Amino acid sequence: MTQVDLDLAGSLFAQLDQATRRGRGIVRDSYGDGEQAAHDIMRAAAASLGLEISIDAIGNLTMTLPGKNRHAPRILIGSHLDSVPQGGNFDGAAGVVAGLCTLSALRQSGFVPDYDIGVMGIRAEESSWFDVSYLGSEGAFGLLDPACLSVRRSDNGRTLEETLMARGFDPTAIAQRRRLLQPEQIRAYLELHIEQGPRLMAEGLPAAVVTGIRGCKRFRNARCLGEYGHSGALPRSLRQDAVAATVALLHHMEGVWDRVEAQGADLLITNGELFTNPAEHAPSKVAGETRFVIDLRSLSTDVMNSVAAEARRAAEEIGDAYRVKFDLGAATDSPPAMMDARLRSCLMGLLDRPLEMPSGAGHDAAVFAELGIPSAMIFVRNDHGSHNPGETMSLDDFAVGTQAMIDMLRQFPL
Amino acid sequence: MTQVDLDLAGSLFAQLDQATRRGRGIVRDSYGDGEQAAHDIMRAAAASLGLEISIDAIGNLTMTLPGKNRHAPRILIGSHLDSVPQGGNFDGAAGVVAGLCTLSALRQSGFVPDYDIGVMGIRAEESSWFDVSYLGSEGAFGLLDPACLSVRRSDNGRTLEETLMARGFDPTAIAQRRRLLQPEQIRAYLELHIEQGPRLMAEGLPAAVVTGIRGCKRFRNARCLGEYGHSGALPRSLRQDAVAATVALLHHMEGVWDRVEAQGADLLITNGELFTNPAEHAPSKVAGETRFVIDLRSLSTDVMNSVAAEARRAAEEIGDAYRVKFDLGAATDSPPAMMDARLRSCLMGLLDRPLEMPSGAGHDAAVFAELGIPSAMIFVRNDHGSHNPGETMSLDDFAVGTQAMIDMLRQFPL
Repeated sequence: MTQVDLDLAGSLFAQLDQATRRGRGIVRDSYGDGEQAAHDIMRAAAASLGLEISIDAIGNLTMTLPGKNRHAPRILIGSHLDSVPQGGNFDGAAGVVAGLCTLSALRQSGFVPDYDIGVMGIRAEESSWFDVSYLGSEGAFGLLDPACLSVRRSDNGRTLEETLMARGFDPTAIAQRRRLLQPEQIRAYLELHIEQGPRLMAEGLPAAVVTGIRGCKRFRNARCLGEYGHSGALPRSLRQDAVAATVALLHHMEGVWDRVEAQGADLLITNGELFTNPAEHAPSKVAGETRFVIDLRSLSTDVMNSVAAEARRAAEEIGDAYRVKFDLGAATDSPPAMMDARLRSCLMGLLDRPLEMPSGAGHDAAVFAELGIPSAMIFVRNDHGSHNPGETMSLDDFAVGTQAMIDMLRQFPL
Repeated sequence: MTQVDLDLAGSLFAQLDQATRRGRGIVRDSYGDGEQAAHDIMRAAAASLGLEISIDAIGNLTMTLPGKNRHAPRILIGSHLDSVPQGGNFDGAAGVVAGLCTLSALRQSGFVPDYDIGVMGIRAEESSWFDVSYLGSEGAFGLLDPACLSVRRSDNGRTLEETLMARGFDPTAIAQRRRLLQPEQIRAYLELHIEQGPRLMAEGLPAAVVTGIRGCKRFRNARCLGEYGHSGALPRSLRQDAVAATVALLHHMEGVWDRVEAQGADLLITNGELFTNPAEHAPSKVAGETRFVIDLRSLSTDVMNSVAAEARRAAEEIGDAYRVKFDLGAATDSPPAMMDARLRSCLMGLLDRPLEMPSGAGHDAAVFAELGIPSAMIFVRNDHGSHNPGETMSLDDFAVGTQAMIDMLRQFPL
């Protein structure tokens, strides 16, 4: 059995940490010096492993183990090398390190795959820097709106176009929506990523197979408009209490969640922001206004649409009952992306204690899957959540996930 | 029948408006130039009416129609002459104008009461300026904590002590808790005030008799502490969602309100402030914290205490269910003050369309009632609430309330 090279993994994570830690957290800024340092580390490791190296027009790095048939559609293993500001060392990078460890293991065992296997260090997946997700993967497929070139980086104010040019890349690839990758030339896309929630910690499992990446339907700017009044003088029957109405609506939606869950459907409902107006509210005033967010996540577009429709219906009814006006505002949508059934099933067969779970956060794999490329993801147990300096992944857990990837690749074609 | 002198009332309201309107609203700052202007107008009117005038050590103005027995306990009609910043023309002042109109009517009709009837222009009832309510009435009875002398006015930063001295009053009366009024020398206290809620507008009635002044029990600094997490990645069973738990608690309390109301008990529950932490919350995060207010109002201390106890109990239970920690914090208490049954009953008999209702807001009458002085209040219909420039009271409605006061005084002793 081909074993994961944990010395290589440990060395790469240590180099990444040393090169990109700024104070407590990791800073691998999209198209900035931090992300570039991570690319340089991976490229140097790939050169040592004797892999072929290429960099596309927008800076995505691909490190290839040649297969027997170099013209057949290839397999890509990928993830991103950027991080949020003050993030952790593993979100994104673990998938690229896993890819290099996989190719290293295959090469050391003398295994020659039928097709090329490329490891892709994808650029700029995080939206924290340019307020756009998936710049690298969507850009590689010519999917980006060229208008994104004028988006300015949140910290230094430079446009994406200026930033690309300063780093020697070619913004016209985005402006002209050029396809740097051809979907039909990709047989499968595999991504290992730390779990961003606590489920594997709670379950006591090192790794899991991802069923799909949840979509998100979000009422970002929901409001309830009532009327302010004296908390002691305004009788209940005459109140237009925005807090009471909002509580009634959100409570109703929790009941909807219960019902959807009882039917076995995938759904998360979150009201992460909820506030009365600090310029007007007071302990002795009936609240005349609330603002809140309704964030719906599901593997099913139908579920999100029907729950959103129910939210709108209930807002009308509850608004009437409480003599207030709800305005849920426009909803933003990102569709769910299901992982490939055959790849999932293969990976499940390779885990000692198999578990399948949805991914709540977005990943580059969603971009590949939406293009019809059979895609799969492996989650590795991680403590303290992600997007913070506390991310904690053990190399033993990493090895379990990476081993499944290696073993699957040896079985291709499935 | 002795009629209300509406020319006098109209003239006094017009003078008040002219002297104390600053931009859109009325500014009769406690112990400031605005309140003093109102005192000067009332005093001049009292002099024209031939009333006896006295001013106590802390500036309360009393204008007296002498009775047959000048040594017997007297009747006081009162209200305050200050306003909130950018308030309306009627909150407080209407009660003093009603008193002067009453004495004018009695004197013009040749009626000589058995006892002295004094109209009291009370100082500084509003807490907006010195963050203390009832400075004038509590001060008159020696009830103020002397520490209040060092409270600074919210706008100009001067202490109450400095402010009193600058106006020629004597802060040692407060420092020594001197009784400037003897409760046993007051037979009854009567106060006319605009209604601060919309009920009389809704009922289509010009005036009502007040049953009592609601007490208030308030959890000013309630909190719920959960843990932040990714809205898409954190499964429901592992969430410590502060918003979901808070919604569950406030919804539960609405059910408690339903039950208390069904039993016929007086209760208002208001959550005027409710907010996630703007420094930490986000649309894609499960909320780790909320802050909110629970404001309970009732004519019954028992009702407030039992509802508060239920809130604490439910917070424990719901906190456990949602894996969060509620901390409702300390509750502040102001006790309810019931109006005198005989006075209420007399006033009810004098209204064409009698209605009794509680007062949700505090009034100087609460101070008199708590000292055991038989007290009564008349509410006059008012549009647009109070404490804002929109206060609207018609002189016809004012006449209905004032006429009831005149007629009751002619019937003393009850």
